[in-house]
Amino acid sequence: MLILIDMDGVLADFEGHLMQQWRTLYPNTFDLAREERTTFYVTRQFPKEYRDKLFQLMYAQEFFANLPAIPGGREALEEMKALGWEVFLCSSPLYGNRTGASEKFAWVERHLGRDWWGKLILAPDKTVVHGDILIDDRPKIEGAAAPSWEHVIYDQPYNRSANGKRRLTWANWKEVLLGE
Amino acid sequence: MLILIDMDGVLADFEGHLMQQWRTLYPNTFDLAREERTTFYVTRQFPKEYRDKLFQLMYAQEFFANLPAIPGGREALEEMKALGWEVFLCSSPLYGNRTGASEKFAWVERHLGRDWWGKLILAPDKTVVHGDILIDDRPKIEGAAAPSWEHVIYDQPYNRSANGKRRLTWANWKEVLLGE
Repeated sequence: MLILIDMDGVLADFEGHLMQQWRTLYPNTFDLAREERTTFYVTRQFPKEYRDKLFQLMYAQEFFANLPAIPGGREALEEMKALGWEVFLCSSPLYGNRTGASEKFAWVERHLGRDWWGKLILAPDKTVVHGDILIDDRPKIEGAAAPSWEHVIYDQPYNRSANGKRRLTWANWKEVLLGE
Repeated sequence: MLILIDMDGVLADFEGHLMQQWRTLYPNTFDLAREERTTFYVTRQFPKEYRDKLFQLMYAQEFFANLPAIPGGREALEEMKALGWEVFLCSSPLYGNRTGASEKFAWVERHLGRDWWGKLILAPDKTVVHGDILIDDRPKIEGAAAPSWEHVIYDQPYNRSANGKRRLTWANWKEVLLGE
């Protein structure tokens, strides 16, 4: 079993961090509760006049370095490894953020350790990365190749319109993937 | 045809840049001609007392951003694309260089253009990246998975001990891959 795990929205709390920064820097402007989120790109749910400010936050140096870990992610990775699975992290860099790719490698080393650094694959197109399963919060994943992996959705409020795919969180992944 | 192309030593002149910096900063110390190179890691051919200084150069910020392009690489990529091949770049980040991963994405955009940015895959372990061919200057490529690609060596003085693999440069790639 070769399993690929996405980072943003799966291991690293991209949106929690973004919204916390937004609320700190721009209080009393626009707000959006987590459970109201319906689109994969959070910017789409922001009024147009605020979008540039929101992009600035996610394009900033240290943004990706400072993402908090999503609880249960690290433990799930270690449990998968203990099952004898080959576990890789598979993340797309954000175009527009000039330091994010390096910060993702630093994040992995800091939160998961040196060995996991060697398991990170950064790919704008994940269809050419080989795996049996890809756990990802993006509702639809396309690219140049026919993927070898089954896309299992990491459940988030903003991806619930995606149907026909298995869905899990770190609270129930064993039930979903192992039938336990 | 899905082809993966390595960056350092194939598209970007890692070693030419490194040695040029070395000669500028530390003249009259130790030198090594390109044709004398026999080991994949250039540090191994340096006397021990100079290795830390050499590592410092390759770990420095902007080192990867400033690598010159290897002549013919860009043209080969475009010709492959024109043949209808799916072409991806597949590079391993250098552990120890804290900004190199991002600089590799910037390098690709600057030298090859925005579309190629989306074709770069950074992977410390290339065996999980799918392809028919991987063109790489590293003599031996190992990892967690059984690779789908054939490793074709990009010929360099330091990889000539690798036998039993096809070998090319941008001067003769069509002859080797297409039999032209």
